[in-house]
Amino acid sequence: MSSHHIVRDDQEPALIIANGASCTPELLGQLLEWSPLVIVLDSAMERVIKLDIKVDVLLGDFDRNFDSEKYRILQYPIEIIEIPDQNKTDLEKAFDYLIERKIPAVNVIWATGRRADHTITNITNIVRYRDLIKIVILDDHSKVFLLPRKFQKWYTANTPISLIPVGHVTGIHSQNLFYPLKDDSLTIGFRTGSSNHVTQDGIVTIEHNEGDMLLMECID
Amino acid sequence: MSSHHIVRDDQEPALIIANGASCTPELLGQLLEWSPLVIVLDSAMERVIKLDIKVDVLLGDFDRNFDSEKYRILQYPIEIIEIPDQNKTDLEKAFDYLIERKIPAVNVIWATGRRADHTITNITNIVRYRDLIKIVILDDHSKVFLLPRKFQKWYTANTPISLIPVGHVTGIHSQNLFYPLKDDSLTIGFRTGSSNHVTQDGIVTIEHNEGDMLLMECID
Repeated sequence: MSSHHIVRDDQEPALIIANGASCTPELLGQLLEWSPLVIVLDSAMERVIKLDIKVDVLLGDFDRNFDSEKYRILQYPIEIIEIPDQNKTDLEKAFDYLIERKIPAVNVIWATGRRADHTITNITNIVRYRDLIKIVILDDHSKVFLLPRKFQKWYTANTPISLIPVGHVTGIHSQNLFYPLKDDSLTIGFRTGSSNHVTQDGIVTIEHNEGDMLLMECID
Repeated sequence: MSSHHIVRDDQEPALIIANGASCTPELLGQLLEWSPLVIVLDSAMERVIKLDIKVDVLLGDFDRNFDSEKYRILQYPIEIIEIPDQNKTDLEKAFDYLIERKIPAVNVIWATGRRADHTITNITNIVRYRDLIKIVILDDHSKVFLLPRKFQKWYTANTPISLIPVGHVTGIHSQNLFYPLKDDSLTIGFRTGSSNHVTQDGIVTIEHNEGDMLLMECID
């Protein structure tokens, strides 16, 4: 059984395992190694248990006659949190739980794939958590996060970078992207910055004035 | 080899096979049976050939040293269309091609899964084709299309229905949805209508005044 220690340092990102498609064991193992706190959404719990993962928190609305009690002994010690609120997705409830615990960052896996409605909702909803918690969504092909007003990171040349506006984004400037943006605007559905890439090894700078924009590092 | 006849009736939806994850053979077979015209994007071509499918049109930017010529004999007769335009995705080029040919409707498969940037771009970009061509994106879990201002369709009770605004949508009214909308607004990233469902067997009506909204029929 993969194991990890009781939370000591809440500065390490937590890990949420959500309700979409499973990722490779490699990605999962890599994140488990670095994640002190593992939160699993109810609809993923059976799949997670089969992978011999120690779960710290089981969370969800527990609908469809979900039996949470059987995990209490199987996964002792485990925190079991039932939140029936139908106005929020289980993933949003998990973010709220982490914010309440003042955990500053979280990686999310299994949030994409399978149902398109869940995928698009899970990805785009992270924008509402700006300033509340740092969220990174990962799958076998993608790493997705919300851009701050000014973003700078070192990349190797040719790294694919997609800029996806969640709504309308204005005043976008970039440095070291192959298709440069200069006081540009992007609008979801009409003009997005998908499939750009890094020009040369070095710092990439992306700034924007207004709106919410996701950066996606994706590979085929 | 699956075969189909030369286009006779351009009223039947065409079929685009895009560059995302493959679907089940069942879904593919079902759509091939009804699709007189099969268009394949370059990066999917090798996978399609292996499935013994007769391709009518091969389309793309043919980058990464893609060799289109070898398909000319292998798939005779085939139309091979190279469009290097980097301002459009290959999927958008395929829509433009169909609009040019005055084909009124198209089903799209393999447009989701794998890279998150492609998935979100492929799904949300269909809004710009309102009034130009009727697009339905399908995968093993999802059916996605753009809603007209007034939409009516017969559904069985409990069918999952998600309403995903691409941007900001106002003046939304629904009938026969479990979580009803009454002069409501939805905004991507902040308030979406994901995971609703049909109340009872019968007509579902969804109206909206402004903005672009996708309907997604999804199953786990």
